[in-house]
Amino acid sequence: MSLIPKSHPRAKSLQIRERLVQGFDHGLVAKEGLMAHGRGEAFDYLLGEKTSKSAKNAIKAAALMLLSARSPVISVNGNIAALCPKEIVQLANTVNAKIEVNLFYTNQKRKNNIVKILKKHGVRQILGKNHNSSRRISGLDSARRVVDKDGIFQADVVLIPLEDGDRTLALKKNRKKVITFDLNPLSRTAQTADITIVDNVVRAINGLILECKKSKKKIRKAPFNNKKNLSACVLEIKKNLSRRLPNA
Amino acid sequence: MSLIPKSHPRAKSLQIRERLVQGFDHGLVAKEGLMAHGRGEAFDYLLGEKTSKSAKNAIKAAALMLLSARSPVISVNGNIAALCPKEIVQLANTVNAKIEVNLFYTNQKRKNNIVKILKKHGVRQILGKNHNSSRRISGLDSARRVVDKDGIFQADVVLIPLEDGDRTLALKKNRKKVITFDLNPLSRTAQTADITIVDNVVRAINGLILECKKSKKKIRKAPFNNKKNLSACVLEIKKNLSRRLPNA
Repeated sequence: MSLIPKSHPRAKSLQIRERLVQGFDHGLVAKEGLMAHGRGEAFDYLLGEKTSKSAKNAIKAAALMLLSARSPVISVNGNIAALCPKEIVQLANTVNAKIEVNLFYTNQKRKNNIVKILKKHGVRQILGKNHNSSRRISGLDSARRVVDKDGIFQADVVLIPLEDGDRTLALKKNRKKVITFDLNPLSRTAQTADITIVDNVVRAINGLILECKKSKKKIRKAPFNNKKNLSACVLEIKKNLSRRLPNA
Repeated sequence: MSLIPKSHPRAKSLQIRERLVQGFDHGLVAKEGLMAHGRGEAFDYLLGEKTSKSAKNAIKAAALMLLSARSPVISVNGNIAALCPKEIVQLANTVNAKIEVNLFYTNQKRKNNIVKILKKHGVRQILGKNHNSSRRISGLDSARRVVDKDGIFQADVVLIPLEDGDRTLALKKNRKKVITFDLNPLSRTAQTADITIVDNVVRAINGLILECKKSKKKIRKAPFNNKKNLSACVLEIKKNLSRRLPNA
């Protein structure tokens, strides 16, 4: 039960903070993750705590990039697993993306906890657990460069919500298209990524899911009626015969 | 070397026929395949041997269906391997489709020959060769219902150029979306498929590849400039600060 009164002027922000504290208590979030969240809060405050027009632009572009990817992968860390596990699974299902657990501060126990919470929300396959499928990407020190051979290693598009700048840079050097959520528009991640959604991920991810569904529908909704088209084809055959022998 | 003089009024049709004869000599095409081709020739004649408007409609719809598929598979038989192996590989690369060799008249030697010609045109992975990955789809007799577990079995969209009606029906019963090339608009395959391209596959396949490339470009060409968008975001922060303290 939340201890935050609904009438509190900053109730929303405090509720999100509470989710992160719960995530910490359940072994999902690192201490460093709590501090990173605080930094995000400050930038969200400066942004007026709403989804800006530029964030909406970025969300639209991200939806198209994810939908047209050959093999998109969503990288999940502790903070994301604590904040919006359900939405990550929804997004992955909508764009046929794989999910890889990939932590800045590696820790097997924390990884297992994250896997557990994602499984609870219905993920079939989670990458990044198996040592045998580890690969290294270039441009990073040893502990932080491990990725899954079936996940980020082979991906063309990687969604990294709340990521560190070094890793974003390494992904770019490895020729990945990078989409990120980052509340600081001046951060290295924000400046390095191909598409930066400068918004609180808790607000923005629902917008991204919706946009993906809309674009997918648009692509699929080709007005095509096979029976009608086949009749038109038979008509063309008849016309062709009349052309060949007009008096028949 | 072709024996057909270019000046022959039916040179094009005869050259295509020649390709099929070569395919037969190289062990790709079954005797039954030669006859099936003859039947196609008759319908093409009735159509005026050109890509009709209704075929163009169907090609557009097929491109969108292939591009928005989760896991599209192209089923290749002897006639297709003899007529347009290069184009099949191009199409598969364009829409990220898998290729499965799947014959109406099963024959391991012919299958191997087809695999060989596809590999010559640069296919990395060909499904349908491996007995261990065989699965059966319902609604067909035993010899003809075998598909690859990583191919047609798990596909959501199957492109079956020049296919038999029973098999088309079985694919539909197994909830696949089916795209086909069929010169007879009244055939069971034509009537059962979701999208029937009533055209000579040799003419139509290049149109389909082009249409897929065009649609893919359209989807990808989201006019998005991350640096510009991040600047807009900083402006929004500045505006937000001015709103909060107009005199600062």
